[in-house]
Amino acid sequence: MSGRILIVDDNPINIRLLEARLSAEYFDVISAASAAEAIAICKSQSLDLVLSDVMMPEMDGFELCRRLKADPQTTHLPVVLITALDQPSDRVKGLEAGADDFLSKPVRDLPLFSRVRSLTRLKQMMDELRRRAETASDIMTADEQVDAPVLRLPQIVVVGSDKRANAAVGRMMSEIGRVTSYEDHDEALQAIQNRDVVLCIVDLAGPPGKDPMRFLARCRSSEASRALPLIGITASDDDQTAAKALELGAHDYVQRPIDLNELNARARTQLARYRYGETLRMTVERTLELAVIDGLTGLHNRRFLDAHMGRAVSEAAKRQGAFSLMIADIDHFKRINDTHGHDVGDAVLQEFARRLEISVRASDLACRLGGEEFAVLLPNADQRTAEITAERFRKFVEATAFGVPGGAEITVTVSIGVAVYPASGEDATSLMRAADTALYKAKNEGRNRTAIAA
Amino acid sequence: MSGRILIVDDNPINIRLLEARLSAEYFDVISAASAAEAIAICKSQSLDLVLSDVMMPEMDGFELCRRLKADPQTTHLPVVLITALDQPSDRVKGLEAGADDFLSKPVRDLPLFSRVRSLTRLKQMMDELRRRAETASDIMTADEQVDAPVLRLPQIVVVGSDKRANAAVGRMMSEIGRVTSYEDHDEALQAIQNRDVVLCIVDLAGPPGKDPMRFLARCRSSEASRALPLIGITASDDDQTAAKALELGAHDYVQRPIDLNELNARARTQLARYRYGETLRMTVERTLELAVIDGLTGLHNRRFLDAHMGRAVSEAAKRQGAFSLMIADIDHFKRINDTHGHDVGDAVLQEFARRLEISVRASDLACRLGGEEFAVLLPNADQRTAEITAERFRKFVEATAFGVPGGAEITVTVSIGVAVYPASGEDATSLMRAADTALYKAKNEGRNRTAIAA
Repeated sequence: MSGRILIVDDNPINIRLLEARLSAEYFDVISAASAAEAIAICKSQSLDLVLSDVMMPEMDGFELCRRLKADPQTTHLPVVLITALDQPSDRVKGLEAGADDFLSKPVRDLPLFSRVRSLTRLKQMMDELRRRAETASDIMTADEQVDAPVLRLPQIVVVGSDKRANAAVGRMMSEIGRVTSYEDHDEALQAIQNRDVVLCIVDLAGPPGKDPMRFLARCRSSEASRALPLIGITASDDDQTAAKALELGAHDYVQRPIDLNELNARARTQLARYRYGETLRMTVERTLELAVIDGLTGLHNRRFLDAHMGRAVSEAAKRQGAFSLMIADIDHFKRINDTHGHDVGDAVLQEFARRLEISVRASDLACRLGGEEFAVLLPNADQRTAEITAERFRKFVEATAFGVPGGAEITVTVSIGVAVYPASGEDATSLMRAADTALYKAKNEGRNRTAIAA
Repeated sequence: MSGRILIVDDNPINIRLLEARLSAEYFDVISAASAAEAIAICKSQSLDLVLSDVMMPEMDGFELCRRLKADPQTTHLPVVLITALDQPSDRVKGLEAGADDFLSKPVRDLPLFSRVRSLTRLKQMMDELRRRAETASDIMTADEQVDAPVLRLPQIVVVGSDKRANAAVGRMMSEIGRVTSYEDHDEALQAIQNRDVVLCIVDLAGPPGKDPMRFLARCRSSEASRALPLIGITASDDDQTAAKALELGAHDYVQRPIDLNELNARARTQLARYRYGETLRMTVERTLELAVIDGLTGLHNRRFLDAHMGRAVSEAAKRQGAFSLMIADIDHFKRINDTHGHDVGDAVLQEFARRLEISVRASDLACRLGGEEFAVLLPNADQRTAEITAERFRKFVEATAFGVPGGAEITVTVSIGVAVYPASGEDATSLMRAADTALYKAKNEGRNRTAIAA
């Protein structure tokens, strides 16, 4: 897979050298001579990766990285810093600035290409979801925006054949989360299927017969652990193993001797990226839900009822069963609105919805059709069950006055029409009509009562 | 990247051999001894690819493929058929059964692994989107389900350095769509940025200096053409080039001599897969839109207005500009509903929404708040502009009676309240309240009029 890479360096010779190497591997390369220019390009063009020098006049690579990660428009872009500095503390500084990796000069081919390929692939995997999430975010109100999930005491799994080495890694991770270690691959695989596990650290130096790469591959083959952040540990300078691990889907690696701060910084980078992906997923899922939720009451809306009525009819037809539909309309609601104003009207609707939800079974589907009109789909409910439910709700509404903003108490009553499949109608439209007609009957006979469709 | 592969073969020795080869490349392999068993596994487990023998007793590989592709639950699974048959007509038969590729025995390593990797990656890229689309589809009514887009005379781009070879390929494709050929890579790249291009065929045997692989990589680096179906053409038995092309993102390839029917079948397979992806995208996008659309009138809903009011206020504050909000409420709507029934009431709401949309500027945002209450956000509109718009709409409603189902004509009038930022309020809530108060004033003063907030 190819990708579009931005090289940032104030030295044109460095740019040319790196460009030639990446271009020979069929990456599409563009360049910027300063961090400021790089930011402008990242904001205006579509890119897959930024590869930046650290030491640059005016703005250095750390600051470039910080700014790209802080801007919602560019936060998803992977950034790799390249530097002559080679102390773990330098790497930690880069990672803490938000860099996804830190390569030391002279940059060897294998770590460079394997890293660039891995980050490009991960970024492209996320693109599709990110585009939907952007649409979703545009149509949400400020209140509805999804926050990144808070990971309280995240669960971390450490996998390796050496118990003592596992314990050492576990101690390093204890600041970040609760660690469980496994020597056995099958047990570890079992453990990471748990959604609470948010990071897995795998020792890639396994003894003969136990292939940690296979564990890695199996982890990625399973849908539940496909996106799980995974950091490999290799022997000192074992670029070969590291490259293979990235190819098989590890997100990052550290080489021995393990530097505590570096491992911590890399783990935090992975967790941040994981949270970002989860936020995108939740944003899209939440917006999809909003399509079928009534904004005022939180009940499902008419669209959802319509989608389910069709299914309820065909299921009931198949197993020759019954189900009921009830339509409930607040009596003289217009008066409440006219006398007390919209705010009080809205509060009455909300309390009405709350009581409706309490009154029905968990398997029943309570919806707001619009205005002061509500409906409940009662699967497997015959006429008697539906009537009992309707009456229970009607009495619950009548029994105690509704407290509303401003301290007033308003007495509310409700009229209800009930239709039963198949007696009152054999398709969604005729059932709705039958329930509606029954509701009119209840209204005409003096309101605050339940009527059953003929 | 790894993946989970199902091998289907009635010969256990074949299974063991293939399993060993794939497993050595770190794929997670399971097996089935018959097509029926394979179908059961595909329906119950999560998989990335099916690799099936053709000749099997009871149900053969063609039929297995057909059934998997016909079932919505398994249609997304890539299927590769393996067979001793080696005529182009056999391959065509496999492709027409819906297979994504057709490998001949003995299966060589390079075509096997490059194909399995490519199909697994494409499938996994689509998984995120497919999961969202499934959620979306669940909450849509039958009417709202998105159909696969119809590609009328799809545009096809042929790229190659040999004009006569391009023309020959173009003729082969003429049954499928309208072909344009390019010898120049830059021109071709420009052409495929067009959304109407749905297939690109690239001759990978370029002369020195013109590297078709680079064209392929650049095509994939650009966001507009990242998902474009791309078929490479290689020299006879040039597995090396074919493997590289798949790695760089080609979806498929044919080898010379090109068989007309095979190229056509592969092109159709690509178009079908493209349509599938587009359907998923449209399903999610459509559902996201539904979250902010009022189902009855097609106008935006209150949620969308709320999301935009906040932005309108902060933008107007920034550039010290004005904007207006108007709330319109149908007079005596309850009477229409009570006299003529819900169906007529709904028709009135729809016609009212239609007239409202005609009466406002394209930049204005018309919404249904709920029931018979509507709102319009008018960016950059001062009091005078808002008042003119409101009065134009009010007169348009009054001027001609509303035709409704059953042939009746109903005279409708509307009362309107207008609030102006910043005079009537400096935040969304107080503006809504001011417009609401003005609306009550219009109602109290006899309806069918516009009132401006103090």
